[in-house]
Amino acid sequence: MCEAAKKIEKILGEESVSFDEEDLETHGFSEWSTSNTAQRPVAVVSPRSTEEVSMIAKICHEYNVPMIPFGAGSSVEGNFTAPFSGISIDISRMDQVIALRENDMDVTVQAGVNWVTLNETIEQHGLFLPLDPSPTARIGGMIATNCSGTNALRYGTMKDWVVNLTVVLADGSVIKTRRRPRKTSAGYNLNSLFTGSEGTLGIITEATLKLATIPTHFSVATAAFPTVRDAAAAASNMIRNGIPLAALELMDEVQMKVINQNGGAGGRTWEEAPTLFLKFSGTSDGVQDNITRAQAAVNTHRGSKFQVATTKEAMKSLWAARKEALWAMLAIRPEGTQIWSTDVAVPLSHLAEIIELSKKESGRLGLFSSVLGHVGDGNFHQAVMYNPNIPEEKDAVAHCVDDMMVRALKMDGTVSGEHGIGLGKKACLEKELGVNTINVMRALKRSLDPRWLMNPGKIFDEEETPAA
Amino acid sequence: MCEAAKKIEKILGEESVSFDEEDLETHGFSEWSTSNTAQRPVAVVSPRSTEEVSMIAKICHEYNVPMIPFGAGSSVEGNFTAPFSGISIDISRMDQVIALRENDMDVTVQAGVNWVTLNETIEQHGLFLPLDPSPTARIGGMIATNCSGTNALRYGTMKDWVVNLTVVLADGSVIKTRRRPRKTSAGYNLNSLFTGSEGTLGIITEATLKLATIPTHFSVATAAFPTVRDAAAAASNMIRNGIPLAALELMDEVQMKVINQNGGAGGRTWEEAPTLFLKFSGTSDGVQDNITRAQAAVNTHRGSKFQVATTKEAMKSLWAARKEALWAMLAIRPEGTQIWSTDVAVPLSHLAEIIELSKKESGRLGLFSSVLGHVGDGNFHQAVMYNPNIPEEKDAVAHCVDDMMVRALKMDGTVSGEHGIGLGKKACLEKELGVNTINVMRALKRSLDPRWLMNPGKIFDEEETPAA
Repeated sequence: MCEAAKKIEKILGEESVSFDEEDLETHGFSEWSTSNTAQRPVAVVSPRSTEEVSMIAKICHEYNVPMIPFGAGSSVEGNFTAPFSGISIDISRMDQVIALRENDMDVTVQAGVNWVTLNETIEQHGLFLPLDPSPTARIGGMIATNCSGTNALRYGTMKDWVVNLTVVLADGSVIKTRRRPRKTSAGYNLNSLFTGSEGTLGIITEATLKLATIPTHFSVATAAFPTVRDAAAAASNMIRNGIPLAALELMDEVQMKVINQNGGAGGRTWEEAPTLFLKFSGTSDGVQDNITRAQAAVNTHRGSKFQVATTKEAMKSLWAARKEALWAMLAIRPEGTQIWSTDVAVPLSHLAEIIELSKKESGRLGLFSSVLGHVGDGNFHQAVMYNPNIPEEKDAVAHCVDDMMVRALKMDGTVSGEHGIGLGKKACLEKELGVNTINVMRALKRSLDPRWLMNPGKIFDEEETPAA
Repeated sequence: MCEAAKKIEKILGEESVSFDEEDLETHGFSEWSTSNTAQRPVAVVSPRSTEEVSMIAKICHEYNVPMIPFGAGSSVEGNFTAPFSGISIDISRMDQVIALRENDMDVTVQAGVNWVTLNETIEQHGLFLPLDPSPTARIGGMIATNCSGTNALRYGTMKDWVVNLTVVLADGSVIKTRRRPRKTSAGYNLNSLFTGSEGTLGIITEATLKLATIPTHFSVATAAFPTVRDAAAAASNMIRNGIPLAALELMDEVQMKVINQNGGAGGRTWEEAPTLFLKFSGTSDGVQDNITRAQAAVNTHRGSKFQVATTKEAMKSLWAARKEALWAMLAIRPEGTQIWSTDVAVPLSHLAEIIELSKKESGRLGLFSSVLGHVGDGNFHQAVMYNPNIPEEKDAVAHCVDDMMVRALKMDGTVSGEHGIGLGKKACLEKELGVNTINVMRALKRSLDPRWLMNPGKIFDEEETPAA
């Protein structure tokens, strides 16, 4: 492996290859993730172009070295860990916007472009890329995990915004999945195959993405409910009635309390009750109309304290609690504790039930946990606090997360709504889909990566787990 | 092959297998299509369940017999032809709605369900499946070709509505791609891989589909323009300004003349000029607001005769010309002539140019042709009339279609916006994507269908075309 890295260094130059311990650590371990391994990559390489990635892949292929694409390192399921060591391919220097075509409403970027930077660049043209994962995330990683976020209810997930991809395959060959039509039914949908494949099929080096027009008017509202079930019922009512919400988020009473404990958010003390956060966007009249209809749904389901913000400042303040949710949770945790954050998604009608059951269990196990849901998608996150040095707590949280997966599957849901499978959820995925379906994925991977070098050990293992 | 068919007959019963010449003809030849072969399947089998399809596939696999899924026979690129003969698997008896879950806003159906029937069944729940291909189309075929239609601008294409698929693979094994989450990032996106794969990877037997809420208010408008370029500019203006149109269709002056020649439509004589057909849906205020904004865009780009309909009757009348476009073209054609109908899609800014160039060329070649565009998607259809018994005309139309493909590719577009590749556009697809990308598709297919039995000869051939 080191020989391969040295060979790459010779070609790319010293400044593009690092053997520094700290670099290997940040590229092989994440404190955001509960799925880490003891292994580290032997080197971190930082290419600047598709050609350089292709060259790296050719060398890794020749030397049989695992290749692990690395974006911003914000994934949480161990997606960029190096269980078989190998070379970490850091795309952060591939940060060029190649072409913005405002009349076609698309943009071509290198995979290392950060989405916040991209949106700041194109805002002047009234366009934006409507995904909102971690603010640090880079396009390549966003595509590899099929990211989403609070905007997914209105705008879908990453796969819905990909026009074409340039991908370096395991042997270093380069393909482009498509040209630039917004709509096509020409050949297999390779965009969607690579999107969400977590770097196991190839390394995404460039992408052309659709862009959306920035709506002219926005508004934000919040409402408190006596129970999670009432909040979920109100959310369901809004969706079933086709109110075109831009976002529909739920935070439970614990999460609201955490916000208050952390000094409030948006300069206010919040009702410590299950709370819906709504975003509206569109024309002035349209937004007003949607607010009226949403408020009716809130009232029908025992909601109260319906607050609306329409100025930029007021919206920011009202949305602050939602925005700061994760940070607040991290800020209040006692020293030595960690957060196990995970997500599942279920059919809409089961959401209230699974949240209630999951809260009940973590409570029963004596674990502090909060819930944050993208309820319009049937998707929710539970963040459980635990001390990894206390074996009982570690076991309890693992048990709690495992049960949450089992429940999601019982309700015909998925073990990952938006974080991917990575290292952490492979066993769950097999329970979700069954071995025949996983074997189809294995066959597809093997056909493109027969030596099993692309981010090995993620999503599923090379060999079928032998029956017990 | 006949032996395999006989074996299937023995198990499924005589009523499920046909050797009738006429059945073989309707299942192997389409007058809608310009891509036909001389070959016919040896038998048509009509299973009733996934288990029966699996059994059929096992026998075909054993006997090395090509399997050609057949939905409604409405595809136009020779997608269900039998170039290597084989067995046609007609899914029309698999027409059961298995489960409607209105609170989850999804439905599970057998692949043979017709979308119009489905929408009639679920209308009472305020839900619908928002694709609108040929009214005869069945879900399995709609998924296999990733169909769309006039609603695609607002609602996307078939791939955006698939929650999970039950698929019978080449060897008869059965997989389910997913459970029932509306959002997921768990494992490879097999939904999107099978969607649009035209039966070359497996036979879709069941599907769970997302449903949309039926909007409360609708409206329809039309406007005439001096040139196609003005109409396209107005359309582009509406899209860039984010007017949430439900449909945005263009018909050129020839197509409007054809409507008039066929007795008008909706009880009126139409302006024989490039015409935009707009659909609006949403709340009462929202629709009104959108109409106002659309009219402003029409006025900016030299449009006139802006007509709006809001009652059900008036909307039907105003939309009639769009709805009857293809039928009118078929009705007015002189005996002995055929219509070559094909579509391409290009980046939005190139649409006016490619339509103008395509019209100019067919004019120059003395061919009668009309244009119909899903302009919001950069997608348009040209229907060219020709007499297949006059070699010059046949050559001219083939030339004309080929040039249209070349132009679409020059503009970075696709050779198929919504009809798929089938038999007819294989060479074009290779020009579009290049041999490396096609080889990735070949590798994927081979991994799931090593004997190359699933709808062989479609999308791409088994062997790379040797260099000339």
